[in-house]
Amino acid sequence: MFYHIKELQYRAKPERPDPLFAKQLQEVLGGQFGEISVAMQYLFQGWSVRGNGKYKDLLMDTGAEELAHIEMLATMIARLLDGAPVGDLEVAAKDPVIGAILSGMNPQHAIVSGLGAMPADSVGNRWTADYIIASGNLLADFRANLNAESQGRLQVVRLYESTTDRGVKDMLSWLIARDTMHQNQWYAAICELEAKENIVVPSTFPRELEKREVSHVLFNFSAGNESAEGRWASGPSMDGEGVFQYVENPVPLAKKPVLKPAPPYIHDTPPAVVKGREDQIPPSLY
Amino acid sequence: MFYHIKELQYRAKPERPDPLFAKQLQEVLGGQFGEISVAMQYLFQGWSVRGNGKYKDLLMDTGAEELAHIEMLATMIARLLDGAPVGDLEVAAKDPVIGAILSGMNPQHAIVSGLGAMPADSVGNRWTADYIIASGNLLADFRANLNAESQGRLQVVRLYESTTDRGVKDMLSWLIARDTMHQNQWYAAICELEAKENIVVPSTFPRELEKREVSHVLFNFSAGNESAEGRWASGPSMDGEGVFQYVENPVPLAKKPVLKPAPPYIHDTPPAVVKGREDQIPPSLY
Amino acid sequence: MFYHIKELQYRAKPERPDPLFAKQLQEVLGGQFGEISVAMQYLFQGWSVRGNGKYKDLLMDTGAEELAHIEMLATMIARLLDGAPVGDLEVAAKDPVIGAILSGMNPQHAIVSGLGAMPADSVGNRWTADYIIASGNLLADFRANLNAESQGRLQVVRLYESTTDRGVKDMLSWLIARDTMHQNQWYAAICELEAKENIVVPSTFPRELEKREVSHVLFNFSAGNESAEGRWASGPSMDGEGVFQYVENPVPLAKKPVLKPAPPYIHDTPPAVVKGREDQIPPSLY
Amino acid sequence: MFYHIKELQYRAKPERPDPLFAKQLQEVLGGQFGEISVAMQYLFQGWSVRGNGKYKDLLMDTGAEELAHIEMLATMIARLLDGAPVGDLEVAAKDPVIGAILSGMNPQHAIVSGLGAMPADSVGNRWTADYIIASGNLLADFRANLNAESQGRLQVVRLYESTTDRGVKDMLSWLIARDTMHQNQWYAAICELEAKENIVVPSTFPRELEKREVSHVLFNFSAGNESAEGRWASGPSMDGEGVFQYVENPVPLAKKPVLKPAPPYIHDTPPAVVKGREDQIPPSLY
Amino acid sequence: MFYHIKELQYRAKPERPDPLFAKQLQEVLGGQFGEISVAMQYLFQGWSVRGNGKYKDLLMDTGAEELAHIEMLATMIARLLDGAPVGDLEVAAKDPVIGAILSGMNPQHAIVSGLGAMPADSVGNRWTADYIIASGNLLADFRANLNAESQGRLQVVRLYESTTDRGVKDMLSWLIARDTMHQNQWYAAICELEAKENIVVPSTFPRELEKREVSHVLFNFSAGNESAEGRWASGPSMDGEGVFQYVENPVPLAKKPVLKPAPPYIHDTPPAVVKGREDQIPPSLY
Amino acid sequence: MFYHIKELQYRAKPERPDPLFAKQLQEVLGGQFGEISVAMQYLFQGWSVRGNGKYKDLLMDTGAEELAHIEMLATMIARLLDGAPVGDLEVAAKDPVIGAILSGMNPQHAIVSGLGAMPADSVGNRWTADYIIASGNLLADFRANLNAESQGRLQVVRLYESTTDRGVKDMLSWLIARDTMHQNQWYAAICELEAKENIVVPSTFPRELEKREVSHVLFNFSAGNESAEGRWASGPSMDGEGVFQYVENPVPLAKKPVLKPAPPYIHDTPPAVVKGREDQIPPSLY
Repeated sequence: MFYHIKELQYRAKPERPDPLFAKQLQEVLGGQFGEISVAMQYLFQGWSVRGNGKYKDLLMDTGAEELAHIEMLATMIARLLDGAPVGDLEVAAKDPVIGAILSGMNPQHAIVSGLGAMPADSVGNRWTADYIIASGNLLADFRANLNAESQGRLQVVRLYESTTDRGVKDMLSWLIARDTMHQNQWYAAICELEAKENIVVPSTFPRELEKREVSHVLFNFSAGNESAEGRWASGPSMDGEGVFQYVENPVPLAKKPVLKPAPPYIHDTPPAVVKGREDQIPPSLY
Repeated sequence: MFYHIKELQYRAKPERPDPLFAKQLQEVLGGQFGEISVAMQYLFQGWSVRGNGKYKDLLMDTGAEELAHIEMLATMIARLLDGAPVGDLEVAAKDPVIGAILSGMNPQHAIVSGLGAMPADSVGNRWTADYIIASGNLLADFRANLNAESQGRLQVVRLYESTTDRGVKDMLSWLIARDTMHQNQWYAAICELEAKENIVVPSTFPRELEKREVSHVLFNFSAGNESAEGRWASGPSMDGEGVFQYVENPVPLAKKPVLKPAPPYIHDTPPAVVKGREDQIPPSLY
Repeated sequence: MFYHIKELQYRAKPERPDPLFAKQLQEVLGGQFGEISVAMQYLFQGWSVRGNGKYKDLLMDTGAEELAHIEMLATMIARLLDGAPVGDLEVAAKDPVIGAILSGMNPQHAIVSGLGAMPADSVGNRWTADYIIASGNLLADFRANLNAESQGRLQVVRLYESTTDRGVKDMLSWLIARDTMHQNQWYAAICELEAKENIVVPSTFPRELEKREVSHVLFNFSAGNESAEGRWASGPSMDGEGVFQYVENPVPLAKKPVLKPAPPYIHDTPPAVVKGREDQIPPSLY
Repeated sequence: MFYHIKELQYRAKPERPDPLFAKQLQEVLGGQFGEISVAMQYLFQGWSVRGNGKYKDLLMDTGAEELAHIEMLATMIARLLDGAPVGDLEVAAKDPVIGAILSGMNPQHAIVSGLGAMPADSVGNRWTADYIIASGNLLADFRANLNAESQGRLQVVRLYESTTDRGVKDMLSWLIARDTMHQNQWYAAICELEAKENIVVPSTFPRELEKREVSHVLFNFSAGNESAEGRWASGPSMDGEGVFQYVENPVPLAKKPVLKPAPPYIHDTPPAVVKGREDQIPPSLY
Repeated sequence: MFYHIKELQYRAKPERPDPLFAKQLQEVLGGQFGEISVAMQYLFQGWSVRGNGKYKDLLMDTGAEELAHIEMLATMIARLLDGAPVGDLEVAAKDPVIGAILSGMNPQHAIVSGLGAMPADSVGNRWTADYIIASGNLLADFRANLNAESQGRLQVVRLYESTTDRGVKDMLSWLIARDTMHQNQWYAAICELEAKENIVVPSTFPRELEKREVSHVLFNFSAGNESAEGRWASGPSMDGEGVFQYVENPVPLAKKPVLKPAPPYIHDTPPAVVKGREDQIPPSLY
Repeated sequence: MFYHIKELQYRAKPERPDPLFAKQLQEVLGGQFGEISVAMQYLFQGWSVRGNGKYKDLLMDTGAEELAHIEMLATMIARLLDGAPVGDLEVAAKDPVIGAILSGMNPQHAIVSGLGAMPADSVGNRWTADYIIASGNLLADFRANLNAESQGRLQVVRLYESTTDRGVKDMLSWLIARDTMHQNQWYAAICELEAKENIVVPSTFPRELEKREVSHVLFNFSAGNESAEGRWASGPSMDGEGVFQYVENPVPLAKKPVLKPAPPYIHDTPPAVVKGREDQIPPSLY
């Protein structure tokens, strides 16, 4: 169950409105690695954990914090949109700054949301749960989380570089620091699980059931063998279960597949036509 | 540039058709972590690498291999669909096995693809590039890759457990082994980059610009402090840049935001109405 | 800012697992009018309210409660999936109940989420922010909310009718009651705003700028005049600004549009070809 | 069955081309609350009405009219795109107005549609049936319709404010007036049904089966009790079935859920690992 | 402008309900090549035709007819859903036919649409305007139309084969015949345009501006030269502008691309790290 | 199985960066008819061909080539983004060219992909498999292919017209030429199949089972009979199976449908309410 207070976790106040930047900032609110994504991802993972210990608590702690980050960004975006101009080409022609705003701002910020933030990214794609993952396997999912925080911090940093507004930079420097922590925490949790389970997910599948002869082999499918120089191409494998091998010229292990014709009621191209024996095809085809 | 040969990397032949399993197997062909996702993800990352070394080559090697895995799965699914029955309730009522197939198979396998594989997941959602990521930052992206291979192997293992067909199991054991390697290789590449760059992505953002006072703090936003037991709550941080702290009762650092009214041309609710001073609102409202 | 406690708002425990019902129940978790939709809709509306009064508080109260409902449904679905069987056609053929489960359950519940709830509807479409609305205009948005609670309660009632599990029915009867309240509360809020603003949204657009001659006219575009019997076809209009009229045989008020040809650099069909004067088209076409 | 005539319901001719405005105007053609949405929503509702009276006729009347509005907007947008310029940065640098157009127009209007309207919104999201609803329950659906017309009129009004073109304003003032009527008519229909059915949808579910003790209770989940001031927090409920209550400090009614471990074939994290008893985990994990 | 009459173009009455078939039939209502797709495609093409002749009229004639087909299918699906059962596993276990229905029907037909048709395909994906095309170039678009009618008729035929209901077959035989006509008509229109414009779209681009040396060359990128046997590999080209050539061993014409490093403010992986000269990377990285 | 070489099929180097054009060029990489679409479409068709002859080989040859085109476009886009500026309104105001870039470029090119190409179109919609088709029926699918190459070449030509960069034009002239060939080759393959199968897809459905009386009839559903002038309105039909007829005033062949009420457990509007006999509705409604 959740309780809300109206105070913000941290300040979300720009020095001045900037509708173009409001549009860009949507990326880390409603984009693939925005705050909606991490909030929903952690909460769904937490609700699905079968067991009730520190991992579940960590997921719920962080999921609840991310809700507060959505709130901060929504507030910031609304303020960046304060008094955003409207107008058409006539207006745009007169003032280059107004023209740049009218050309570049997200028109839905005026037409649809009435100068409010939207659950969408910087080009207007609405947020979708395609972005998130909760598999029930914690090591797999913590890797998803470390990835999300890595992509997320990278995007916030890029936004930090593209504004001169001190209020915006102040808030972004908070989010960057929190992403630093979140990378650290998922990293720590991953280390714990890897120490217990080995690094390959899922750890519970018996190794003798996989084709072990290719479990540590790099196939060189792109010409040039720069990839042979990497740690992954020789020496003991990272999972301690084998030795890396490099196959310079990979070959196929199975022959060309030949698919059987479909039954007539499917009405694929009749077999005789596919095979090109057109002399044998009667007018009625079958 | 790409060359194709028609031989398969590995066998893709079931013992017998099974349209229900064909539907399930679509998950690892066209789902969020299916072979289309990893192929496209690695290729796009490879094409975007600014520099030409072993990392790019590794991406292209693996991306090209994943194309071969799409091919194997497409072949297997077509064979699992061989001669799939069609029919309606009348038919379904007569034979429980046929009934189960007609109820449970993906109807698009008959109606749309004519007994061929589809670029879709196990519930029929078409593949979307929402699933993939290529950020230009290799450490971030290799984490995305390790995640994808972790989720992917987990899903293939679950499918392995739910079939008794030896031909299918044979192919899946190949894919599981390849996912073992791919987890190993991205793990190795990540270790290399972390050794050079430290673990926090992006490594190039000056730490003094972030709010360092919260860079290693866990806020307890979900009641109960099981999460205080973890490695992430005390001791030196994983990035070696600080010491983990645990805040039992997090408090807000900013006050309630108050947003300014929108300009009249936006036609949001008039301020007087929002504030509830209805006695002051004239009939014309503004 | 949000705080979470791990206790549930209300019980979410079925008498026994039922993977088929788990799939159906996803509709009111992650479907168009499921709990994710109402939670996100109310929170985004609340964050965008420009003003800080009872309406904003009501939105945040209810948005936070809906987060608790997502949690209850996620818990219930995980329990309905407890120990869900896996298997293929061989298995399905032996036991009709297992067969019905394997045919009918959402395969992603096993393959993707590992027996956890998903942010998706009952046919597996992932939740999308296409489902929600926050316009900045409270009367418009409260109508969206009343609609969402109406559709939502209807769907929960239909699910209540299709299960015999007393634990499930117990939880659904809670959700139905809460939807009763939420319909009541948005209804009350709407009445307040309509009393202040009149019923037509937005109330602030000057009526003299619209084509008032058709502001209260019903055009009979579908043959048969049953619709003339309705309250909307005669008598004073609901907004008190006119009298309803019924136009039995509506006619167009503008002539056929003729679009100018596109410039040559667009490479639409050349005008001469569209007009059919083929004798005049030279080989080079332009 | 439908008949088409090529004359327009109303004029759709701008004074001059304006590719930026063409992009914005797409919102009310192919956006969430654009004309495609209302046309499809009313027609699907009409086709699903089980019974043949004035409500069905009203739905079909209005659905057919909305098709005419799609047509007017498609025509207007094509004309706003007349002779739209193409060019690159070299061109953009020379003339600020051309630059603003090239920066701001929807590039698909040139590349994809050849200066025609698209079934998409103002940021280029293609129209999706996620936007519409037809539930079979008329009171629920008429509320969806009143919402759609409220959001739609609001958006058209915002567009009206952002153009100076008298031809565009003329057409928009027609659409605004029609939306006035459509709000009036759904309002009237809703009043009729509420008078017969009471206000809670669906009206046919026996009230004694819901948890009546919370059917009229407002839980204060967001700190601060401004919401207690509203009509929804005290007095008789709007449905006449109870009395509104306000709960200042809501508490959970169920304890922390504990989920059972998943079966081994799901390969979630092994229970011993989740619970942290790592000393007990053998190398093979299970 | 459109007029609707409530009579159907053709009968849409099954012999008996069949909720499984209702689900399948959705494919040709709301799927990629269903009736919504062709209706919207033809209407949008018609509204965008710049010129007013027989092609525009043909598009509008056919677009309006397809609206009638949506109506027929919506009616048929509602009737196939008449009295569809609801229930859970308890119910499913008792009667194999009911079990097959509950397992296999689209749950949204009960929960969401209340036994009405939905704007969705046979697996529940909602219709999207991604499915349609209107480019402004008639030859291109008529090819899109011929394709749509080909895929559409194929799907209807497959559905015809999978039902024994004479009422359903009766209606499908109508739709199949109409698709026969529509294939014929677009074929005729294509022939006319090809006769005027040559076969390559767009015909108006000067041939001397393309790399004519590869305008009629087949590159053998998939090993094996079965494709050399085709009409496309030798002899005069179909457009009469050259001679087909077959290149057995295609080679690249450009060298490996090397991309420049990104500017520091993008925070991609630092160049030194990508290139692997780790000895040269200072702790601060830049 | 696929092999990759790092050399490009053809040069992909612009004279100078142009972030606005990079955004536009995304259309033919990741849009509806971009290179991802044709690559995936041909490969999936090839993998599904049931039979192993020249058609399969042609599909695989061309599918593999299209992968090389994705690569060329990804390379070109990355180079057009070289050193793209970042900044906010302050920056935009100072230099109109920089302002136009900041307003007009795709913000995700900086924030998300780090100056790399994205699997998305020119307005930022991510690529989706909704765009492709593989039906198992070759004639149907080759028509889809001819359409895709027609739309694709049209789009590339439009882009060619809107740039002055000689490097970009050089590459586009290659792609245009390849699209010329691909139109030619699918045209040739279609001619072969039509010669064997007749023009109506699928050819294998017995004509006597369709309603032959309407198989060659044009219904005039849009007022005005310009469409009667076409080849499709009179004379022998294109399939040689009949004579085209034109019906000036089409009439319905079936009466108004009346749908039965839904069962009570669906909770649609009660029949008595729909029919308007409100005097007969008791308080409990059923």
